[in-house]
Parts: sequence; structure tokens; C-alpha cells
Amino acid sequence: MNAELQTKGRAAKAASRVLGTLGAEAKNKALHTIAAAILQEEANILAANRQDIEAGRVAGLSEALLDRLLLTSARLQSMANDVRAVANLPDPVGEEFDSRRLPNGLQLSKRRVPIGVIGVIYESRPNVTIDISALCLKSGNAAILRGGKESVHSNQALARAVQLGCEAAGLPAATAQLIESTDRELVREMLRANGLIDMIIPRGGAALHQFAIENASVPVITGGIGICHVYVDRAADPAKITPIVVNAKVQRPSVCNAMDTLLVHRAVAAEVLPAVADALAQYKVDLRCEPNALSILGGAAGVQPAGPADFDTEFMALIAAIKVVDSLDEALDHIYAHGSGHTEAIITEDYSAAMRFTNEVNAAAVMVNASTRFNDGGQFGLGAEVAISTQPLHARGPMGLKELTTYKWVVFGTGQIRP
Amino acid sequence: MNAELQTKGRAAKAASRVLGTLGAEAKNKALHTIAAAILQEEANILAANRQDIEAGRVAGLSEALLDRLLLTSARLQSMANDVRAVANLPDPVGEEFDSRRLPNGLQLSKRRVPIGVIGVIYESRPNVTIDISALCLKSGNAAILRGGKESVHSNQALARAVQLGCEAAGLPAATAQLIESTDRELVREMLRANGLIDMIIPRGGAALHQFAIENASVPVITGGIGICHVYVDRAADPAKITPIVVNAKVQRPSVCNAMDTLLVHRAVAAEVLPAVADALAQYKVDLRCEPNALSILGGAAGVQPAGPADFDTEFMALIAAIKVVDSLDEALDHIYAHGSGHTEAIITEDYSAAMRFTNEVNAAAVMVNASTRFNDGGQFGLGAEVAISTQPLHARGPMGLKELTTYKWVVFGTGQIRP
Repeated sequence: MNAELQTKGRAAKAASRVLGTLGAEAKNKALHTIAAAILQEEANILAANRQDIEAGRVAGLSEALLDRLLLTSARLQSMANDVRAVANLPDPVGEEFDSRRLPNGLQLSKRRVPIGVIGVIYESRPNVTIDISALCLKSGNAAILRGGKESVHSNQALARAVQLGCEAAGLPAATAQLIESTDRELVREMLRANGLIDMIIPRGGAALHQFAIENASVPVITGGIGICHVYVDRAADPAKITPIVVNAKVQRPSVCNAMDTLLVHRAVAAEVLPAVADALAQYKVDLRCEPNALSILGGAAGVQPAGPADFDTEFMALIAAIKVVDSLDEALDHIYAHGSGHTEAIITEDYSAAMRFTNEVNAAAVMVNASTRFNDGGQFGLGAEVAISTQPLHARGPMGLKELTTYKWVVFGTGQIRP
Repeated sequence: MNAELQTKGRAAKAASRVLGTLGAEAKNKALHTIAAAILQEEANILAANRQDIEAGRVAGLSEALLDRLLLTSARLQSMANDVRAVANLPDPVGEEFDSRRLPNGLQLSKRRVPIGVIGVIYESRPNVTIDISALCLKSGNAAILRGGKESVHSNQALARAVQLGCEAAGLPAATAQLIESTDRELVREMLRANGLIDMIIPRGGAALHQFAIENASVPVITGGIGICHVYVDRAADPAKITPIVVNAKVQRPSVCNAMDTLLVHRAVAAEVLPAVADALAQYKVDLRCEPNALSILGGAAGVQPAGPADFDTEFMALIAAIKVVDSLDEALDHIYAHGSGHTEAIITEDYSAAMRFTNEVNAAAVMVNASTRFNDGGQFGLGAEVAISTQPLHARGPMGLKELTTYKWVVFGTGQIRP
């Protein structure tokens, strides 16, 4: 194993033993000293960020990517505020649940505890370094961070601020550590660092998630890929259709909970589709239509026939696929065949259709008469979000602090032995 | 991919879509028809079992292994009763939790749903075929079973009975399917059958678990390996020590929650160790002692010096390692260094020692004044047990029906869009 990973992994394990027993006060104090350290280190952080920005220009990064990479005084202030906001969230550790007294008198509980060491592999935005460090610390976990090579200097300076903040509060510096090597092979080694890392969260595109699934022996939380459907039922309230569809598609088209495919019941398609297409045209959304939808919309702005892959694509852009379906059953079958298990919505006033949709669709979030864009930790009231999981184990949908914990069984006895 | 695995995997996925929407009544009816089918198929099952027993004799299996393999009329009756008992357990599916109304009026819940398709890889005992099928069905999951080659004919006959029972109740036969090929390569393919299998549970020894960790791309629940400690604190109640230590070691020495290592505080070692060793000697337990324990026990029956590996061994036998420690801290450090995260117990009347032990030891179950043998789904009141997980994700400790489920977020709106 790579020496840096081994050294930092061992230090993280040792730190996690300390973090696991801390109360919320000690953790919150450290979050505040981290926020202060981010501001104190501003000059160093911005200087490091200039190195990354210059290297990015030389490498020909787009202006959009350079803007994602850029740190400013205002952005650092905002990061520090985010860290203080994490201090204000409730501490999930120590909660007891499923408690019971057994007939033999044993008093039994599940007690929420940290997972241990969490490895996060992420791409360009440097604020992730701070976000993840704060959320892992608050949930009692040590973090091992592997950022993108475009932001390596910024990430080093930010991680240094986190470590200074931890030390100022008397916590181990190894509470959050950045892997500084940008060797790609290290990602593979992190994914197989059983015994040093307890859970890996990849944050990035489909290729990173697929790489993690195929190569990890450490448990991995995968997700983030959303092929999301909005189904307009025959009993949809006309006043709700366009606002929800437009919001789901255009409010932030580059993210995983944006709508990709619009399904419309045949009985209302001739009425619904032109109005929806008009509204989407104002945002210059390209519409990829199967033949029935095309026969209704043909000739309208931005309308074209759907290609073979359009119903299996996460567009991440102002593009939507459109299909007319004969029934709720056909909509359910389409979602079963093409959905990615992220977010699915129905628009209907029909009670039974709403019940069937929520019962039968299998996805991280299933919604009635609401925009798919709500599937988000902040929107769901979790206070923060580490990732959105689309796999069924451990946690599904938005992952907040609680989803960074596990439990142990605590058993208080008075001398019981098993008969 | 192997054709049998692919065909059965697809059938399992289709079955899981049906199973996921069934209420408890339909599932319980099928469990009763499965119980009936096991009894109706008795002649076929026992004939198939005779083939396995004969092949096992030829292959030189020990009498103990042949007995584990053997099916009798009484054992089939007992399996049928176990299936009926699963019908009587509460259905975990459909439970809603963490429900809330958001400020914008969205009504939000986590709803418990099946995981999908569960793959189980197990070794010789054929009753696992029935147990797992029943527990997966009750929790709404389809099962793909891969048993040991020693019991392949028995497993085929039992799986056939399960399928007859499913069909009699109108459920898909693919609710539970046995992989009939005994090709070892198939285990590796199961572990990488993403898209067909959603979770793998290996049930077997350390080698199987390690193989699964190293080769799986499907999420795996690992566990079952227990290096379990009992720590006798200086403030232990003398009346509780010997009963707990003896029970933890000898009540069933071949299982994962049996005690492997006894730690005793120096202040009470001279008094405690001879009494405990006497009691263990009656069960012919070999005692592997570090020098301090040896100097107290030296010469007693079954006592010998501990070898270098004895404190890192799951004995699964009438053997215990014994060490004298200077303090609770040393006991905690020893358990941190040598434990496998399964079950750890302290015997003490000291409140602060009990609190520190339960707070600081990181294991699936942490106990005060109780035998390690209680870490078991049946003993904990879960009604049934699929496995004992020692990894932190998804579930930890005994896994019952609830641990075979996940959740989806269900969101009821009235037209909300994200600002």
C-alpha cells in the first residue's frame, strides 16, 4: 500500500477512537475553531488557490470550471459560516432506539455511534474539503479526503486550516486528512484499504461511481446518478402540471434530481403537451419526443424525434425526453425499465393512482404533486447533505449526519447467562 | 456471466417487483403453503438427502458433518414449524418513520421497503435453504441461494418444495431459487452480479467472508467472526464471575459469540483465576495463559503458556486465552487491538467502569454482567436471524427481518416547486 495512505489511514483510525467518545460540546467547539482558522488562513488559502487557477488556465479548463475552482474572501466567509451551521445541527451520536427489556431482565438498546473512518473521493470544488470535514467531525468520524488534482493546492491549504482548528480545540490533527498525492492509483488503493477506511463516498460523475463499484472492497455508497421521471396522469390538476414540470427541468438542470423524462397519459396529452412545450421553450429546453408525442408537438420550437438512448440518459442539461403512455401501468413499467432509482414524481388528483405510484415505484424518493428537485438533504430538513444514495443498503436518498453513523447494541445485565 | 445465474437473476428481479407490493396476508399464506409443501415432499427430500449422505460418506466427511447434513422426518417437521413461525412474525415492510411536515407543506416519510434480490452463499446445513427462503419472502425479497456442494441434492429438493409452496399461493416460483451448478466460479460471479442481486450474505467461515470482501462488487454483509472478550473488573461481583465466564465459553463453544479471551484485573486475579480455572477444567477447557496468569495458574489442569497467536484467534472450541491486566484502560486497549468487533463483556459492580466500557468499546454488542452468548437474534427478541454483522454499514449485530429491508422517501405534495 502507498505509504502516505498507510500513514494517514493509521492516524485516522487512532483519531476515530478519540472522536467516537466525544460529546457534542467538544465537537462543536472544534467546529468553531475550524471556522476561525479558515478565516485566519485566508492569505495562505487564496495564494494556494491562485496556483490552482493558474495551472487550470494553462491546462485549458473552461471558465465554468475555473469559477467552480475559484476561492474568494466572500467564499471563504461562506465556508466558515457553513461550518458554524454544522455546529448548530443536533448531534446524532448517542441516540438510543429499539430499546427493550427482555423477559430475563436484560436491558437492551441500539446506541448510535460513528462509523469510524470515512473516505471521500471527490472532484473539483474545493469547498467539499471543508463540508465533508465538518460533517464527519460532527458525526464523530475521521475523514480521509482525496480531491481532484485541479484543486490540490487549495485543498491542501483548506485541510491545513481544518487541522489547525482541530488542534486549537485539542482534537487530533488526523481528524481530517487530505491525501496529497495525485497519483490515480491511490484512488484504487483507497477503495481497498479495509481495516483503515470503513466507508467510501465517491462524489462525482457516473464514471467515478462505476469505478468505485467495480474496484472497492471497502463498502461504498453509490448514487448521484438520476434518470428522473415526471408522470402526468390523466387526472392531473392542469394548474399544477406546468409549474412542476418546468421547475423539475429548469430550476437547476445540471444536477441529479432534475427531470429527464416527461411521461404524459394519452387522454390528456393533446392538451398538456403543447402548454408544457411552450413553457419549456421559454427556457430553450430541447424536447426529444417519441412518435406519439412528436405527432402532437411536431414543428414546435426545440422539438425533435427521440433517439434510441434518450430514455436512458441523465441529461444534466436543458434537454427532456417526452413520451405518451396509455395508462398508469405503462408509466410504471417505463419507470421500472428506465429509471435509476433516484427520484420519480406523479402529478395526479386521483387518490388510487397516487397510492399505486408511491407503493409500486422503487426509488430513493417517490413524490406526488411535487417537483423532483426537492430530493435534497437541505430541502428535506436534514440540515446538511453528504451525498444522495441510490443504492438500497445503509442509507437511501439524501444522507445527512445520521446517515454517517451506525449503532452498537448495548446490553445491561445483572449476571444473566444463556440457558 | 454464467447462463444459469443470468436466467435466475432476471427471474428473481421480476419476482422481487411482485413481492415488493404484497401485504403480510399474502406472504403469510405462502409461508403456510411452503410449510405444507415441505411435508408433502418428504419422500423426495429424504431420497435426495440420502444421495448427499452417501456421497458424503464416500468423500470421507466426518460423522459430525454427516449429522449436520442429515435430514429426517422429525427435522423436516421442525423446518416446517420454523416457516410457520416466520409467518407469525410482524411484517417490517410498510412501516413509516422519521415522518415530518416541511414548512412548505410537503408531507415526508421514510417508508420501509424490501431490498430486492438477496443472494446467500452458505455451507453445509440444508435447513438454511428453508430459513433464508422464508425470511426473504416475509421481508418481501427474492432470494438466490448457493449452498455447499455436499448438500446439493437436499437443497434442490428443499428449494423445489419452497417453489411448489409459492406457486400454490399464487406467488412467482422465482421467489426463491437455488443455483444448481456447483462450479466454484459461480460464487465469484454472484458476488459481481450487480443489477441482478442487491445484497449478498455469506454464511460460513472466515475464508468465505474474506473471499466475499475481496471479490464482491455487490454490497456484502460480512460478519460471523468473533474474537470475544470477557473482562473481569477489579469491582466484579464474585458471584457473577464464574457463571458468566463458564457460560460464555462452554455453553456452545463452536459459535462466533463464545468467549475466546478472558481478561482479569490484577487486583482480583489471584482470587478469581483459580476458581474460574477449576470450573472450566470440569468442561476440559484448555487455558492459554500469558505469564502473569500462568504464574497464578501454573500446574493446574489444562493450563499452558499462551502462544503468539492465541490472543488473535477465534477458537471455536474448548480453548480460552487468559491475560491479567493492570487496569480498565489496559483491558480497553487490549480489546481495541485484538477484538473483531463482535461481542465484548465486562463483569463489574463499578458504575463508572460499566459506563466507560459500554461507551468506549466499539463492537456489534457490548455487555455488562451478561454472557457473550446472548448476542443472537433469537435471544435479542428479533424472532429470527439471517446473520450477525460485524461491519458497520446497514446493520450491525443480529440481523432479523427489519435488517432485510431498506426505505424509500415518500413525499406527498399539493403542487410545491423548489424556489
